Amino acid sequence: MPFNQKNDIFNRSIWDDDIDPKKFYKSYDIANYAPKKSKGFDHWDYAYRNASWHLTDAVGERSMSEDGKSEGFTHFYSLNSPGPPQQLSITDSAQATKRVKKASLSFGAGAVGICQVDRRWIYTHNYNRKDNAEQKLDLPKSLTHAIVLIIPMDHHLSKTFPSALGGAATGIGYGIGLNAAVTLAQFITNLGYEAIASLNDTALSIPMAIAAGLGEYGRHGLLITPKFGPNVRIAKVFTDMPLNVDHPVEFGVKEFCNICRKCADSCPVKAITQGEPQDEPPNISSLKGIKKWTINAEKCFKFWVGMNTDCAICIRVCPYNKDYSKWWNRMGIRIAGSPLRRFMLWLDGFLKFSERIKADHWWK
Amino acid sequence: MPFNQKNDIFNRSIWDDDIDPKKFYKSYDIANYAPKKSKGFDHWDYAYRNASWHLTDAVGERSMSEDGKSEGFTHFYSLNSPGPPQQLSITDSAQATKRVKKASLSFGAGAVGICQVDRRWIYTHNYNRKDNAEQKLDLPKSLTHAIVLIIPMDHHLSKTFPSALGGAATGIGYGIGLNAAVTLAQFITNLGYEAIASLNDTALSIPMAIAAGLGEYGRHGLLITPKFGPNVRIAKVFTDMPLNVDHPVEFGVKEFCNICRKCADSCPVKAITQGEPQDEPPNISSLKGIKKWTINAEKCFKFWVGMNTDCAICIRVCPYNKDYSKWWNRMGIRIAGSPLRRFMLWLDGFLKFSERIKADHWWK
Repeated sequence: MPFNQKNDIFNRSIWDDDIDPKKFYKSYDIANYAPKKSKGFDHWDYAYRNASWHLTDAVGERSMSEDGKSEGFTHFYSLNSPGPPQQLSITDSAQATKRVKKASLSFGAGAVGICQVDRRWIYTHNYNRKDNAEQKLDLPKSLTHAIVLIIPMDHHLSKTFPSALGGAATGIGYGIGLNAAVTLAQFITNLGYEAIASLNDTALSIPMAIAAGLGEYGRHGLLITPKFGPNVRIAKVFTDMPLNVDHPVEFGVKEFCNICRKCADSCPVKAITQGEPQDEPPNISSLKGIKKWTINAEKCFKFWVGMNTDCAICIRVCPYNKDYSKWWNRMGIRIAGSPLRRFMLWLDGFLKFSERIKADHWWK
Repeated sequence: MPFNQKNDIFNRSIWDDDIDPKKFYKSYDIANYAPKKSKGFDHWDYAYRNASWHLTDAVGERSMSEDGKSEGFTHFYSLNSPGPPQQLSITDSAQATKRVKKASLSFGAGAVGICQVDRRWIYTHNYNRKDNAEQKLDLPKSLTHAIVLIIPMDHHLSKTFPSALGGAATGIGYGIGLNAAVTLAQFITNLGYEAIASLNDTALSIPMAIAAGLGEYGRHGLLITPKFGPNVRIAKVFTDMPLNVDHPVEFGVKEFCNICRKCADSCPVKAITQGEPQDEPPNISSLKGIKKWTINAEKCFKFWVGMNTDCAICIRVCPYNKDYSKWWNRMGIRIAGSPLRRFMLWLDGFLKFSERIKADHWWK
């Protein structure tokens, strides 16, 4: 069942002629890409989106480094500085857990949880984008725990999805996630423990976030968190530090997604299922053998690369995608998890929460 | 009058035997430093503080790179990717200014302002830490504007100053500032304009922040901002983009500092003046010819390196150092700027706002 990262849709776009990213990747290089005139896809928007990725690109060489690695995407970060000769002795794991969590939040995470490393979610292989080779991934068995970080994305930007402008929410999220993950990994290293900082590389982040009590799984195949809805990125740090684990939470997402089809209805290419959870994925780019709603990654990716930016309509229209800095939305998410969920679903439509905001409205 | 960065107290600690940083710099390398047992200076605290600097160290090689440069400290960042062949034409500079400011805030700044580049604040020379050489700094004349970014630091951590723990407020602030500045510079580059990202290098940040309307100058020689008090870092981006400038603001700081001596009274080595503004600095590490309160950088630095972490007691005790997410503190700063300032000063003492929080209290 574990997943080979070579089959990840992004990596397939390198080796599989059937997945053609056309001008998509090129659009991230402003020196060789001419933006359109249309709002949300113009020079301002692409300049902004591409800049938002700048630090992540510079540190991890997102597309491809000399040696074919893309840290944070195909391989974990190798940025650690050496730790001390003496390991800090931890007698009180509850205190240590609290401190690690406090540090995580101060490094930029919006929420943090801890789980044991479940080998089912670790990729069987890394993929090297240069020599097109897969390499067996042997995450050291000593790394028994993972600290999972939730990075909230800009809510207002998410309301412009799909747009090049909105793609900046993603880029900014990765920049914060990169900083939080490598800093946290260094903190743990400095305490004398092993630590590996990871974004999309090395393991499936969503099941790990669920195990760490950070959210539930949604119909759109995304994590839905109680604090920020689905509008988040996930980072993680693997470690051998003795920490106390969290446990999965339920706040009514499954029941809500059972009656809600907003994401499935709104997906222009019907990549999101209207049906029941299945354990057989539509193609090789999804995990096999876990009964869940699974999107069709081929349909999804082909559509979004056609726009030369990420799509994420499913995030925009999700009734859980709200500005939770407002108390009424924090109240709403509780009601959505109660038997009043049908009313909340109706209200979401009535108040037109899922509507797209125009790019110039955001810029103002 | 312009300042030669070679005389900056940090650079003097490289070439001037009279400024001996002892174990201070070593304490940033956990592999070769044994923390103490005392609270605020123990293994947890140094592990945390040092980690907070990790990304800044990795990207800019804070202490010294192969070629002696330390980007963000002695030299500006060289991280820019190429811009487009076609420059975006800007017909509405007010709109462009608004957009650049909106982007700045989304990249991590807490406040942003724009000023014209005043050559008085540009360093005459860069300092190379390896070959101990100063190099004439010729910031291109085409870079007429600077976008100044205010990065708020963690308020709660600032209440633990001086401590290794509290040093993390600084490190985290630099990490956010680095990300914001290089991302903003790339955004402007992507629009087809020149942009240079800078932290402490290249120019004096405080007078630029004042010119950009971001705050007033305090007795402790620090910028005092209306939104975050003195507990901030400053970053800046030099550009040739045609932007509208801001103007200096006054909200009563000068009058308040005239009657307040908290920082001067609290400084263990009396590095802060009790007296009137002067235009003759106490030594070569401060700017000459501008009438202002000037700290004695030698006394200040010698004391702080003795603790193997930054001091910043002056920030902790400053009555402007408050948690401005609370409405009563936002109200308080207005009253401090009114004829009721003596009452506010009394109240600050009465409520013991300047007291130090214990490190374990913070960790809890």
